[in-house]
Amino acid sequence: MNRTRLDDHLADLDADGYLLDASQEDANQLYLSGFTGPDPFLTLYADGEVHLLVSGLEYGRAQTEATADTVERHADYDYEYGGREERTDMYAAFLRDKGVESVSMPPRGPVGTADALRERGIDVAVDADDRLQAVRAVKTDEEIDAIRDAQKANEAAMRAAEELIAGADVAGEDVPADGDVERGVLLHEGEPLTSERVTEEIEVTLLRHGCALDETIVAGGAQAADPHDRGSGPLRANEAIIVDIFPRSKATKYNADMTRTFCVGEPSETLREWYDLTERALEAALDAVEPGATGEEVHAAACEVYEEAGEPTFRTDPETETGFIHSTGHGIGLDVHESPRLASGGEELEPGHVITVEPGLYDPAVGGVRIEDLVVVTEGGYENLTDYPIRFAAE
Amino acid sequence: MNRTRLDDHLADLDADGYLLDASQEDANQLYLSGFTGPDPFLTLYADGEVHLLVSGLEYGRAQTEATADTVERHADYDYEYGGREERTDMYAAFLRDKGVESVSMPPRGPVGTADALRERGIDVAVDADDRLQAVRAVKTDEEIDAIRDAQKANEAAMRAAEELIAGADVAGEDVPADGDVERGVLLHEGEPLTSERVTEEIEVTLLRHGCALDETIVAGGAQAADPHDRGSGPLRANEAIIVDIFPRSKATKYNADMTRTFCVGEPSETLREWYDLTERALEAALDAVEPGATGEEVHAAACEVYEEAGEPTFRTDPETETGFIHSTGHGIGLDVHESPRLASGGEELEPGHVITVEPGLYDPAVGGVRIEDLVVVTEGGYENLTDYPIRFAAE
Repeated sequence: MNRTRLDDHLADLDADGYLLDASQEDANQLYLSGFTGPDPFLTLYADGEVHLLVSGLEYGRAQTEATADTVERHADYDYEYGGREERTDMYAAFLRDKGVESVSMPPRGPVGTADALRERGIDVAVDADDRLQAVRAVKTDEEIDAIRDAQKANEAAMRAAEELIAGADVAGEDVPADGDVERGVLLHEGEPLTSERVTEEIEVTLLRHGCALDETIVAGGAQAADPHDRGSGPLRANEAIIVDIFPRSKATKYNADMTRTFCVGEPSETLREWYDLTERALEAALDAVEPGATGEEVHAAACEVYEEAGEPTFRTDPETETGFIHSTGHGIGLDVHESPRLASGGEELEPGHVITVEPGLYDPAVGGVRIEDLVVVTEGGYENLTDYPIRFAAE
Repeated sequence: MNRTRLDDHLADLDADGYLLDASQEDANQLYLSGFTGPDPFLTLYADGEVHLLVSGLEYGRAQTEATADTVERHADYDYEYGGREERTDMYAAFLRDKGVESVSMPPRGPVGTADALRERGIDVAVDADDRLQAVRAVKTDEEIDAIRDAQKANEAAMRAAEELIAGADVAGEDVPADGDVERGVLLHEGEPLTSERVTEEIEVTLLRHGCALDETIVAGGAQAADPHDRGSGPLRANEAIIVDIFPRSKATKYNADMTRTFCVGEPSETLREWYDLTERALEAALDAVEPGATGEEVHAAACEVYEEAGEPTFRTDPETETGFIHSTGHGIGLDVHESPRLASGGEELEPGHVITVEPGLYDPAVGGVRIEDLVVVTEGGYENLTDYPIRFAAE
C-alpha cells in the first residue's frame, strides 16, 4: 500500500474518518486492512491511522496479518453475540473511542450499517468518488511484482490451452466424422474438444501455479461474439476461439489478465482481416499509453483503427451490437476491473497504473476476435507485462 | 427458487417493492434474479413480479438465463454511459415505471444507491431481517440435488487428500531424517508434504469434478487450533490434521461442506479422547436435528457432550480461547454460511433446511479436531448428505 498516497487522498475528507464494513471480498477492505477476513469486519481510517475491529475468532490472525495500526476485537467493547442493534452499538462505541463523530463510506458500503449509525448520532456521508479506488489504481513496485507473478501463471495456462487447441484433430479431415460428431468439430483423444475441457486445463494449470480463478472464457464461433459469454460445448475448425484468462494469485490476491484468439484450420477472409485490424488497434492503443494521456485518448486510438476500416464502434453508433462494442481496457489489481478506465470519459494515466489493453471485434454472423495485453504505465510510457506471442494459428 | 415462499415472505413489506443492487457475488441477487451478472445490476420485486435492469452488454445473456418476469436494459431508459447522477436517475425512472415510490433493501445493499434514490424522492428502508435469507434457507428438491452433487465432488477431493496423507513417509522412521528435514515431518515423493500440496490436490480434484472453490483448510498441529487458519508448511506425524473443504458447483453455484481430521502415526492420549468426544458430539447434535427443534437446541446437544467431559464451551465460558469455540453449524446454499445458525439464539429448523453439523475442540498446546457432516432437515428428522467414513487414522 502507498501510505503517502492514501494520506493524500483521505486528507480532505469532510468527516472525522473513513469507514469500511466489508469482508476481504471487497478490494477496498483488503487494501486498507491488509487482512483476509472471510466475514465482514470494520476498518476505520482516522487521524492518519488505520484501526481494525474484528470478531474474537479472527483476532489472532488479524493481529499477525493486518497492516493496520491497531487491531481490536468485539470483546474490547463488551460485545457478546447479540442482535443487530447490539452490534451497531458496538460499532458506534468503537468510532467514538477513536474520537469519530462523522464518517465517510464508499458508495457500496452497507446501507444497514450507515442507517443504524445515523440512528446513533454518527453522521454518515457517501464518498461518491470512491476515493480508495484512486489510491489503489497507482501500484507500488511490490504490487506490480505481484501482478507480474500472476501474469506468469497466466502465460503457462494460455500455453496449456493453445497446445490443447493446436493438437486437436478435425472431424472429417484428420479423422472420419461419424453420426455422433459433426464434420469440423475439434477432437482431443477421440472426444469432442469442448470449451469446458479447455477451461479445465487452464484452471488446473493456474492452480498448479498458485492462482485461484473466478471465471475463464473459452468461446468459439458465435459464442465469441458475446464478450461476456464464457463458452460451452464443442469447439470447431475454421472459427475464431477467444481465450480470456484472468487469474488471481492465492498468496497476494492480485490479478492478471490476458486474451488471445486462436484458429485451427482456415479462418474466413473476414476473420483474417479482423485479426489484423485488432492487432493494429492493439498497437495503436499501446502507442498512446503514457503518463498524462487520458484513458479516453487510448480508447480513441483503438477506435480510430476500426473506424477507418469501416467497423462500427460505440463512438460512431452508441446502439451498435456488432463491431468494437466494449471499452479498450481497465485498471487491474486486487479487483479484475478497477480504475482507470480506457473508455469515453476515462481519466488521466499516471505512472504505476496497471491496465489492460484489449480491442476486439464481434458479430454473431462472423464470430469474435480479441487480443489483450497487460501493461504498467511508466515515466517514459509503459512496460508490457505480457510475454506471449500474438498469432491466430494455434501452434 | 420457491416462488410461493418468496411471495409469502415479501407480501407484508412496508414498501412498494424490494430492491437489490448487486452482482452475482451476492447470494440474494443470484437467487432472486437467476442471473450470473459479473457487474452490479438491479433486481426489483414488486406486485408479485421480478424485474431486472441490466447493461446492454449483459442484455442478451440475461434474457436467456434470468428467471425474472421481465428483463430491461439501460438503453430502455435512454441511459448512455454517464456519471453516477445519470445512473441513479435511470434507477429512479425504472422504479417509477413499475409504480414503485418506496423500496426496502437488505442491510448490505449499497448506501450510495439508497441515499441517491432518497435524494430523488424514493423512500428507502432497510430490511433489517434480510428476509430473502429466510426464503433461501428452505431449499427445493432441485436445490438439494445441486448441493448433493457438490458434496459428491467434495468426497472425491477428501479421498484424494486422505490418500496423500495416508501414503506419506515419516522422516526419521520410514526414511532417514537429515539436516534439512526434521524428524516426524511427512514426506511425499521425498519432499515434505505441506498443507499447500494437499490443498492443491484437493482443488485440482474439485475442478476435475466441476467445482470452483474459495478457500480450503488443511491445518495440522497448532495451526489446527485456530478454526480459521487455512494451514501452511510441512505436515507432521502424530499430530491432528484438519481438512475442511467447501466447494461450489460451477454449474449451479451451490456449495457443499465437509470436515475430517486425520492422523498419521500415534496421536497423543488427549487427541484420541478429543476425537472420540467430537464423534459423540456430532452424533448427539445429529440426533437433535428435526423440524421444530431450534438451532440453539442442536448446538446445546453438542455442547453438553463436551461440557460433561469438562471441556470449556462458549456456554460455560464466553471468553474461552480453548475448547469448543465456535457454533455447531450453519445453513448452506448459494452462500457457504447462511441461515439457519446452529448456535445460541439459532432459529427453528424446517424441512428443506440444509445445514452443517461440525463440533470441534481446539487448544494450541494440543491441536485441533473437527468433524463435519452436511445434512438436510426432513419431515421425519434429517437425511445425511455425507458419504465419507469417520476415522482418525488416515488410510
